[in-house]
Amino acid sequence: MLKPLGDRVLVEIVEDTEQKTAGGLYVPDSAKEKSQRGKVIAVGSGKMLDNGTRVALDVEVGNTVYFAKYGGTEVSLEGKNYSILAERDILAIVE
Amino acid sequence: MLKPLGDRVLVEIVEDTEQKTAGGLYVPDSAKEKSQRGKVIAVGSGKMLDNGTRVALDVEVGNTVYFAKYGGTEVSLEGKNYSILAERDILAIVE
Amino acid sequence: MLKPLGDRVLVEIVEDTEQKTAGGLYVPDSAKEKSQRGKVIAVGSGKMLDNGTRVALDVEVGNTVYFAKYGGTEVSLEGKNYSILAERDILAIVE
Amino acid sequence: MLKPLGDRVLVEIVEDTEQKTAGGLYVPDSAKEKSQRGKVIAVGSGKMLDNGTRVALDVEVGNTVYFAKYGGTEVSLEGKNYSILAERDILAIVE
Amino acid sequence: MLKPLGDRVLVEIVEDTEQKTAGGLYVPDSAKEKSQRGKVIAVGSGKMLDNGTRVALDVEVGNTVYFAKYGGTEVSLEGKNYSILAERDILAIVE
Amino acid sequence: MLKPLGDRVLVEIVEDTEQKTAGGLYVPDSAKEKSQRGKVIAVGSGKMLDNGTRVALDVEVGNTVYFAKYGGTEVSLEGKNYSILAERDILAIVE
Amino acid sequence: MLKPLGDRVLVEIVEDTEQKTAGGLYVPDSAKEKSQRGKVIAVGSGKMLDNGTRVALDVEVGNTVYFAKYGGTEVSLEGKNYSILAERDILAIVE
Repeated sequence: MLKPLGDRVLVEIVEDTEQKTAGGLYVPDSAKEKSQRGKVIAVGSGKMLDNGTRVALDVEVGNTVYFAKYGGTEVSLEGKNYSILAERDILAIVE
Repeated sequence: MLKPLGDRVLVEIVEDTEQKTAGGLYVPDSAKEKSQRGKVIAVGSGKMLDNGTRVALDVEVGNTVYFAKYGGTEVSLEGKNYSILAERDILAIVE
Repeated sequence: MLKPLGDRVLVEIVEDTEQKTAGGLYVPDSAKEKSQRGKVIAVGSGKMLDNGTRVALDVEVGNTVYFAKYGGTEVSLEGKNYSILAERDILAIVE
Repeated sequence: MLKPLGDRVLVEIVEDTEQKTAGGLYVPDSAKEKSQRGKVIAVGSGKMLDNGTRVALDVEVGNTVYFAKYGGTEVSLEGKNYSILAERDILAIVE
Repeated sequence: MLKPLGDRVLVEIVEDTEQKTAGGLYVPDSAKEKSQRGKVIAVGSGKMLDNGTRVALDVEVGNTVYFAKYGGTEVSLEGKNYSILAERDILAIVE
Repeated sequence: MLKPLGDRVLVEIVEDTEQKTAGGLYVPDSAKEKSQRGKVIAVGSGKMLDNGTRVALDVEVGNTVYFAKYGGTEVSLEGKNYSILAERDILAIVE
Repeated sequence: MLKPLGDRVLVEIVEDTEQKTAGGLYVPDSAKEKSQRGKVIAVGSGKMLDNGTRVALDVEVGNTVYFAKYGGTEVSLEGKNYSILAERDILAIVE
């Protein structure tokens, strides 16, 4: 498994199981938008501030998160899709 | 629901119910300008300063706000349109 | 009315009542340059410094100001034109 | 008159009374280079440092200065040409 | 051998021994994607903070790491491929 | 004469008296490369740090310096060519 | 000779005496890649931190270094090729 460094977070991408058009039709896989949802699998040790202290991350393992479209680096491991994201690219926790 | 992180704010977009041209005609939906108004639904825990303290946001849940055109990430949830915005993209509170 | 946030200022734009060409002719409305003058209607609570203190703005409600051409966000409210500007886009106070 | 804000300076542009080509010919007005010389008419209250203190400007009213070509905002007032410049765009004082 | 400076890390690139297409076919060498995996061979003395203290790196000699695609400078030494990377370009430690 | 402000330096450009091609031929004036050498004529009072103290410059009047190609602003005064450079654009002192 | 300023380093470029293609052929001079290796001839007095203290450089006169391709300013002096580099463009010391 991957252990993220610093303020990075490893997220397993949750594919949207179904996407419908405004008219209610199912969108074929090839036309689906990229998912921006995922589950936090591992978190780094936090961001180093300029004064040398480290700040723990706001997200925790197990959180479902909503992240920015163009932020992380995608990795495929054993058939699953992950993204390694800096915490600033995580917009919100899905509750 | 979404819980914004850090200095981010979740805003439910308020569509302008009617838009008229300078000549007084109604603008059809497809030509409407994007709304820059919304209602604050949830706020993050605030921005982390370089010295490690966190500053609470200036906007509160319930505020109607006016935000910058090109700032947030739009999200659709159960038929409603939201934007997740950094606080610096919120220009003013509508009073 | 709009209450600006942080270091932002709400300015009511003062249209130049007449613009003449170098030769002394009046410029028709459609060819007029955008006004860079306005009256301060409301100011934010000031800029937050990195050390967490807030600095009051240098402009006050009632000042007539001269602002940078490409800075603010324009808003129309009840037939009047406003601009929401960051204080750094205000160049000078007209005395 | 205009009162510059912060680290800004109001400079009355001094047009070069004559410009000659390398061959000694006078350059017609339309081909003249933009002047980079001016006289300081008013100065702002100084730049705010990150620690909240304000630093007085190095130029004073009355100085003749040499400024960067692409820095300020030009303003015409009662037939005279001014530039509102940030102090960092003033390169040197002409002595 | 190379001794990296500051916050830099010397990584020996681990070529992916086999790459299959989604259909299970082997990808020929010329079409292989660039590897983003490597083994840490040497690390710099750490990043200098603005206050003059140096922070030791989070990766250690011997770690297998996953790094950003467009970050390091590649070097060939005695038939092996290395990358000299700033630590911020190392995304995660492979465990 | 010009008195540079802050971290700026006034340098009189020393034209390379002769430039030869790799083959030993003299290069005609029109094809000469721009000189990057000059003599320091005047220096500013130093750079202002964020904490409000001023740091004296490393170069002194009389130094011959080697400067970056695309850094300063060129000025012609009484038939001589000068450049007003920020100190960071001065690469080395010629000894 | 040149005395570098601040965090700059004067490096004498060591040309790669021979470059072979993957097939083992010698590469003619005109097709050679630019060398990224050199010997440190002189170092500046170090980088000035924001708090006004100066940090000595990590490289020393005599070190053979490996530097970034697009970093320094090249200078030819008495038939030898040098590069004046900021220390951040020096990637590693060759040991």
